[in-house]
Amino acid sequence: MQNLKMMYTSHYAPDLVIKNDDLAQIMDTSDEWITQRTGIKQRHISLKENTSLLATRVAKQLLEKSGWDVESLDIIVVATMSPDAYTPATGAIVQGNIGATNAIAFDISAACSGYIYALSIVESMMKNLNFKRGLIIGSENLSKILDWKDRSTAVLFGDGAGGTLVELSDQEDSKILSSDLKTIGSKSEYLTAGETKTLETFPTNVPHNFKAFQMEGREVYSFATREVPKSILRAVKAAKIDLEEVDYFLLHQANARIIKQVAKKLKLDEDKFPINIDEYGNTSAASEPILFDELVQSGRIKRGMTIAISGFGGGLTVGTHIIRY
Amino acid sequence: MQNLKMMYTSHYAPDLVIKNDDLAQIMDTSDEWITQRTGIKQRHISLKENTSLLATRVAKQLLEKSGWDVESLDIIVVATMSPDAYTPATGAIVQGNIGATNAIAFDISAACSGYIYALSIVESMMKNLNFKRGLIIGSENLSKILDWKDRSTAVLFGDGAGGTLVELSDQEDSKILSSDLKTIGSKSEYLTAGETKTLETFPTNVPHNFKAFQMEGREVYSFATREVPKSILRAVKAAKIDLEEVDYFLLHQANARIIKQVAKKLKLDEDKFPINIDEYGNTSAASEPILFDELVQSGRIKRGMTIAISGFGGGLTVGTHIIRY
Repeated sequence: MQNLKMMYTSHYAPDLVIKNDDLAQIMDTSDEWITQRTGIKQRHISLKENTSLLATRVAKQLLEKSGWDVESLDIIVVATMSPDAYTPATGAIVQGNIGATNAIAFDISAACSGYIYALSIVESMMKNLNFKRGLIIGSENLSKILDWKDRSTAVLFGDGAGGTLVELSDQEDSKILSSDLKTIGSKSEYLTAGETKTLETFPTNVPHNFKAFQMEGREVYSFATREVPKSILRAVKAAKIDLEEVDYFLLHQANARIIKQVAKKLKLDEDKFPINIDEYGNTSAASEPILFDELVQSGRIKRGMTIAISGFGGGLTVGTHIIRY
Repeated sequence: MQNLKMMYTSHYAPDLVIKNDDLAQIMDTSDEWITQRTGIKQRHISLKENTSLLATRVAKQLLEKSGWDVESLDIIVVATMSPDAYTPATGAIVQGNIGATNAIAFDISAACSGYIYALSIVESMMKNLNFKRGLIIGSENLSKILDWKDRSTAVLFGDGAGGTLVELSDQEDSKILSSDLKTIGSKSEYLTAGETKTLETFPTNVPHNFKAFQMEGREVYSFATREVPKSILRAVKAAKIDLEEVDYFLLHQANARIIKQVAKKLKLDEDKFPINIDEYGNTSAASEPILFDELVQSGRIKRGMTIAISGFGGGLTVGTHIIRY
């Protein structure tokens, strides 16, 4: 039996940092308001690096870190809700940029659960298609799809990318123990971005514009604090371990209050739920791999530990992997 | 060993038909010019049904045809390069519309190869995650992302959706014999649609618009006629069959001349390469499942036959499945 091993992690965020006080200069908000309700202190904003370039930087860092021959990559999947384009896929651009000529590449759209869904997709395709090495990237340039006049959403998000090199291995000591994925499409209208309209009339001058990010914050909060604990409990059960055996719970960084509420519902110590939203804001599909990399780099996550990694958001989607790192 | 069986097919195209002569009224083109160069006589155009609604109609038709309990679906994947939105995924909207509460749902972006890539994704996830039943839909509302003043691209495309219900089965007589997928990201700029820009400055009034479809026709023709025969030959070899054993080659309907050139390069009778582009134009990810359904409905494709199904397009991407139907 072959298992998927998380081999190397990396992340990248654009240089420009916009602090809450900077936002208070251009809209009716304050550092205190944002911090209390979300835990966010600042976010990185990309002025010139589009989603594929953020992802390419992560891919190049990973290749340098691993020493892997780029031609040994079999698959590249980018999870994003802010792609460079409808086509080419952001993943295809990355594949071209790094010269991974033997890798198939495509994007998936599952919003803030994108990295979690992509991990299942890549694990499944690697096993089924006899691939050996894969690259999973969550990359977002959310600043380009926000309404910077809407203080209820503009303050929440940031740009960035995180990625993981994975390998199929015969080893039993490092693998995905279980995966739980769920979609609740009946609530899809609570979180929308980039909506485009049909022609309406023909002939026509179609406007080629899209709607900015919109969210029913209360509904999404309620969804997340209800569904994430359930997903974690299902995944833990499927992994045949006890909840207490999980060393860290890496949750999508949407809101510090959601994360603390999930910890409370599971009756677990908040210290097991690392938070970096203060630094990055909500980076959607990039948030889980950025946090994962930071914890690996800082040494808090060590080989042999058991971690739960959960995403939730647009779709609505939710998902959890239990990983023996 | 479990195998993926193609169980039921269906397709849907909007009512409004725009003939070449209709286009000649609004741009400098003619029926003769379009027909000779592409084989297209007309296309269906969606005025009010967005991508998720086209896909939902196919999903409902498939549920009626199969008699399946909607709650027995484990996964829904929509391949599209013209989604309703960046989030929710079109697949999630479909999941909500039909009430497939037990199915995970997401979109993939692999342009005109989307249905081909999605078939591999669904097969792999069903095997790896112990799913039993899946739904793969290619759905496109390309009319909303075209520049209707650009006669070099506007005449080529149409709207529509096609889908397939699949099931994991112990049967050996009906399955995917082999799959060949390839991405050539170094040529990603030859076919682009929906490009969005970064902020450039901050603070900013971001325009929230996207670029229309653009194509280097000659480069894409050259890519398709070179890479599709190679992909078919690799897939046939991996299936351990002879090229002559393939009953039908279902190629992405981008251009009748491409399809005839592929037949010629493979030294095969053109009759083995069915064409319906005259009716639909290029419907991107929807084209393969629409053609597949038409051939099943007409009785040309029968159980036990061996078919090759190939996609190619934006990414650039290419792929072929050899299916024992």
